[in-house]
Amino acid sequence: MKRVYNFNAGPAALPKQVLQRAQEELLDFQDAGMSVMELSHRSKEYEKVHQKAATLLKELLHIPVDYDILFMQGGASLQFSAIPLNFLSKGKTANYSLSGSWSEKALKEAEKIGSTHVASTAKNTDYTTIPSQLELSEEAAYLHLTSNNTIFGTQWREFPSLPSYIPLIADMSSDILSRAINVKDFSLIYAGAQKNLGPSGVTVVIIKKELLKNCPDNIPTMLNYQTHAKNKSLYNTPPTFSIYMLSLVLEWVSEQGGVEAIEKINLEKANLLYDTIDQSGGFYIGHAEKVARSHMNVTFNLSSEELTSVFLNQAKEEGFVGLAGHRMVGGCRASIYNAVPLESCQALAEFMKRFQTNYR
Amino acid sequence: MKRVYNFNAGPAALPKQVLQRAQEELLDFQDAGMSVMELSHRSKEYEKVHQKAATLLKELLHIPVDYDILFMQGGASLQFSAIPLNFLSKGKTANYSLSGSWSEKALKEAEKIGSTHVASTAKNTDYTTIPSQLELSEEAAYLHLTSNNTIFGTQWREFPSLPSYIPLIADMSSDILSRAINVKDFSLIYAGAQKNLGPSGVTVVIIKKELLKNCPDNIPTMLNYQTHAKNKSLYNTPPTFSIYMLSLVLEWVSEQGGVEAIEKINLEKANLLYDTIDQSGGFYIGHAEKVARSHMNVTFNLSSEELTSVFLNQAKEEGFVGLAGHRMVGGCRASIYNAVPLESCQALAEFMKRFQTNYR
Repeated sequence: MKRVYNFNAGPAALPKQVLQRAQEELLDFQDAGMSVMELSHRSKEYEKVHQKAATLLKELLHIPVDYDILFMQGGASLQFSAIPLNFLSKGKTANYSLSGSWSEKALKEAEKIGSTHVASTAKNTDYTTIPSQLELSEEAAYLHLTSNNTIFGTQWREFPSLPSYIPLIADMSSDILSRAINVKDFSLIYAGAQKNLGPSGVTVVIIKKELLKNCPDNIPTMLNYQTHAKNKSLYNTPPTFSIYMLSLVLEWVSEQGGVEAIEKINLEKANLLYDTIDQSGGFYIGHAEKVARSHMNVTFNLSSEELTSVFLNQAKEEGFVGLAGHRMVGGCRASIYNAVPLESCQALAEFMKRFQTNYR
Repeated sequence: MKRVYNFNAGPAALPKQVLQRAQEELLDFQDAGMSVMELSHRSKEYEKVHQKAATLLKELLHIPVDYDILFMQGGASLQFSAIPLNFLSKGKTANYSLSGSWSEKALKEAEKIGSTHVASTAKNTDYTTIPSQLELSEEAAYLHLTSNNTIFGTQWREFPSLPSYIPLIADMSSDILSRAINVKDFSLIYAGAQKNLGPSGVTVVIIKKELLKNCPDNIPTMLNYQTHAKNKSLYNTPPTFSIYMLSLVLEWVSEQGGVEAIEKINLEKANLLYDTIDQSGGFYIGHAEKVARSHMNVTFNLSSEELTSVFLNQAKEEGFVGLAGHRMVGGCRASIYNAVPLESCQALAEFMKRFQTNYR
C-alpha cells in the first residue's frame, strides 16, 4: 500500500501509527468483544477513553486546574454562535479581530445576537498580515480572534494582552497543539478536531471555569457551556469514535515528545517550504507577509494561472494531494499540520525545485 | 476473537460485515492512498460517500422527491432546539405529544423559544402506553412526537393524522429504518445515528422542501435547516467518518433486502423476547402495555431488585452486554436494533428460560 503525500487543509493527514492502532482494534476494543463504536457512552470502557483524551490534552497544553475541557459537536461554526449566546449580555459589546474569512464568519454570527465591534482588522491588506492596532470598545464582553488563518496562510505570533476583566477567546482550529501556548492568557480556546487533533466530528473547548457562571439558562441547552461542563461532555451521546481517535492522536503527540518537540519539527517543515519559496527568485511567490506567515498553511502562487495549473497537475501525478489553494485566494496551499511528516515536506520542496528547473 | 451479545441502547451494535469492511480499508480508502478520515470533505472521493449515503437512505425509506436529506451534528438534543427556532414563529404554538423523557426534553427546549402546548400525553400511565386523545391548540406550528421510547420501551404503531397544514415532526432516533413508514405523512423526521444508522456523531434529517421557506435568517446559521439544504450538508466540515459508516450500514440494510425484510426479522426478534416474558408466568414482567410495546427496546423486570441484580450479573458473565435498564425505570432492557442478530435474541431467550428454571 502506497500512502500519498497528504497536504489536505482539513480533514487532514492523521499519523499512520494512529490509523494502524485503530485498525487493529476496530472489531474488538481492548477485549471488550465489540468495537469502540459499539460501546455505550455510559460504559466504564468508554469513560476511560473520554477521560484519557481530556487528561492528555491537559498535560500536553499545560492547562491550569481552573479550566474545563469540553467535547462538543458542530465544529467551529457552531461555536461562532455559542460564544455570543453565552457571553454577549445586554449592555455589552462583543469585540472581534478580523484576520480572515473565518473570523468574519464568527463576527457575523455575533451580529445576530447583540452589539459587536471590530477591534482590529487586516482586511485592508487583503489578509496578508495579522491585524495590529487594537481598539477595544467600551463594555467589551470579550475579544475574539482566529489564531491561524488556513485560507490566507497567516498566523498570530504574539497574542494581544488585555485587561484581566476582558476575556480573550480564540478559535485555534487550525493550529492547536502545533506550538506552545499560555492557556492562562485565554478565557476560552476552541478547535474543530479535523486539522491537528483527529478526524472531523468533535470540537474541543478549553474554558476558564469562572466564565461558566455567566452562561444564561434561556439559551438552547446544547449550546450552553454549563451543560457540557456539568455533565463532563456526556449530557447526550458524544461522538465517541472521534473522541477515541482524538485520544490516540494525543497519545501520539505525547510519544513524539509533546507539543514543544512537535513545534520544533513544525518549524523545520515550514522553513523548508518557505526557504524554497524565498530562494526561487520569484518563481514561487508567498501570499502572506513574511512576519505573518503561518507554520501550518503555506500559501503561494506561481507567475501565472496556467503555470499554477501545470504545477498542480504534475504534483498530483507525483502523489501530492490537497495542494490547490482555497477558491477565495487561488494558487497553491500546503497544509502541514502535526501529522504531516517531515519527509512529505522534503519531497514537496524537492518537487518544487525540480519543477522550477523544468519550467523557469 | 469472541464478539459479545450486544444489547446496548445506543451507541449500539453495528453489523459485523460493516466493521470488517471499515477495518479493511481504514488506511487506504479505495486506492486513495489515505484513510477515509483523511479525505478532504471537498474531494470527489468523499463527495461520493456523502452522496451514496443520501441516495441509499432515499431508496430504503422511499423518500419522495420533494424532501431533502441533511446530515447534521449534535444529536437529537440539538434538533430539540433547531425545530422551534426554525418553525415556531410568533403567534403560533408548538404542539407536543409526550411519550417519555425524550419528548419531555424536546418540549422543554421549545418552551425557551415560544408558546407551547401538550397535545397528548401518557405521563399519567407512567409512560407504559402511547398517548391517545390528541387535542391540538389553535394556530399549531407543528406537532412533535417521539416514535419510539428507548427508556420505557414503548413505540407508536400508528401515527396521528393531522390536517395537511399542520406539519408532523418525529424524532425517530431509536427506530428509523427498523420498519416501513410513509415519509409523506411527516414534514420532518430526524434521528441520531447511533442506534439504527451507524456510530454516534451524525444526525439525519429528512425534511419536506416546502418547510425550508419558513426558516428565519436571524437564527444561528448552523441551526438553520436552509443552510444545510442549500449546501448539501457541506456548509462546514461534516463528520465524514460517521457519514461513511452510515453509508456502509445503509448498504448492509440494502443487502438484507431493505427495510421491509429487516422489519420482519425485527418482529421475529421482538416476539421471541416478549413471548419469553409472557410465557414466564410472571417471573419476567414487561414494563410497557402490550399494545404499546416497542420492537426496539424490550423492557422488563424480575420480581425483586435482588433477583434483577443476580440476573444482570449472570447475564454479564455469559457475554450479554447492556441489559441493565435505564436508571429512571430500573430493571432490564434489551435493545434489539437492526444490527442485533436474531442469534443474540435466541441466546438471550434461552438464557432467560434457563435462569428462570434455576431461580423460580
